[in-house]
Amino acid sequence: MSSRANKLAALGYDLNSIPSPAAKYRPLRLDGEIGYLSGAIPFEGAQLLFKGSVPSLVSVEEAQQAAALCTANLLRVLAHELGSLECVSSILRIAGYVNSDPGFDQQHLVMNGASELLVEVFGEVGWHARSAVGVAGLPLGVSVEVDMIVRVSPTVASSDDG
Amino acid sequence: MSSRANKLAALGYDLNSIPSPAAKYRPLRLDGEIGYLSGAIPFEGAQLLFKGSVPSLVSVEEAQQAAALCTANLLRVLAHELGSLECVSSILRIAGYVNSDPGFDQQHLVMNGASELLVEVFGEVGWHARSAVGVAGLPLGVSVEVDMIVRVSPTVASSDDG
Amino acid sequence: MSSRANKLAALGYDLNSIPSPAAKYRPLRLDGEIGYLSGAIPFEGAQLLFKGSVPSLVSVEEAQQAAALCTANLLRVLAHELGSLECVSSILRIAGYVNSDPGFDQQHLVMNGASELLVEVFGEVGWHARSAVGVAGLPLGVSVEVDMIVRVSPTVASSDDG
Repeated sequence: MSSRANKLAALGYDLNSIPSPAAKYRPLRLDGEIGYLSGAIPFEGAQLLFKGSVPSLVSVEEAQQAAALCTANLLRVLAHELGSLECVSSILRIAGYVNSDPGFDQQHLVMNGASELLVEVFGEVGWHARSAVGVAGLPLGVSVEVDMIVRVSPTVASSDDG
Repeated sequence: MSSRANKLAALGYDLNSIPSPAAKYRPLRLDGEIGYLSGAIPFEGAQLLFKGSVPSLVSVEEAQQAAALCTANLLRVLAHELGSLECVSSILRIAGYVNSDPGFDQQHLVMNGASELLVEVFGEVGWHARSAVGVAGLPLGVSVEVDMIVRVSPTVASSDDG
Repeated sequence: MSSRANKLAALGYDLNSIPSPAAKYRPLRLDGEIGYLSGAIPFEGAQLLFKGSVPSLVSVEEAQQAAALCTANLLRVLAHELGSLECVSSILRIAGYVNSDPGFDQQHLVMNGASELLVEVFGEVGWHARSAVGVAGLPLGVSVEVDMIVRVSPTVASSDDG
């Protein structure tokens, strides 16, 4: 039983696996106990839920949901690759890239959707450093992309929640 | 007596603390001796000094000052959290995000304001890797955001400059 | 004899050194066995080969070549600073910034030019984490900028290929 997986499920995100990259990179690159996660986009299964720039096509509230979904997808990658979210020692850093209309200046509010999910699931060790910026475009036209650096404990026995 | 704090003060930046994040992330996330710093924006106290895109609303010269102020704010975070800038072993990497008008192509010159401050304060160990890009927007409409990765020596006794 | 240098040469990139930064940062900042590389742009020698936004001024195919050239320049830095590409233990993470027209949504395809080069040269240890975003502008107006984090083995004897 994973309390973190349960918390994530209670927020509406199961640990279903997500689409693998179609190109020559990895969703998670482990270097000892440091994990570098590739930028995640708001897939739910094979479907992209949030496309278009903020706020003309996607509202700030929707973009917050997009940021949370990106982050949930990062956690899905970790659960899938490590066997369990319990193997994550701490969240170190996230960067959020928000597809922004000219003049949009609330990228930090959008990224609160990511930060709040992390603290909800991981508690004290979920507090992280963060950068939030507005970009001119993102792969497949999505509204938000989030990447992450974490510390993991590969020696923690994997549980059956992954 | 901290020579680094003195150097920073001589450049016009005291070690006053800066506004804390209003959301669920930290200005500095320590992982052992590696410190990940959240993106800093050009606050001086509670006031934002540089807002708007470059160069139409903020000149290159002003944006260089904005980059330096962002960087000073990163150093203020380090001094506040570690007790002293003397606990910083080396600056590893900075990224600079410049709020850019279409066609603006001098983000590297803007970021020289950050790089020169770091080398001025830290000398040899202040030389860093750097990325400079132009973004479509930034939180609160600021002109520049800078984040950083550093190595720290937590065992260094804190001095009275923080 | 370096098989990696040979592979890179076979792809059209020799190990000529590239222009040094004209400002106070370093192309490679080593922290023990971790190397942080500054954002590289598509120089070939002293000439910039790919300038302008994608896809109006530079096609996706050309931008892929630009991403590969940026990546080759990162490898040239590593070869020059470490003495040989054989000192690279693994590629950990790359970020790609693509100078994007409004509505452009294929930054991931552009960055395949970088990822494929890395896997071609480094094989299994070349697989990396990756973020790809569209930016509003880049230094000197280039089409693509790529930065990188790597693990190195400084103890590996340098060979004569650097």
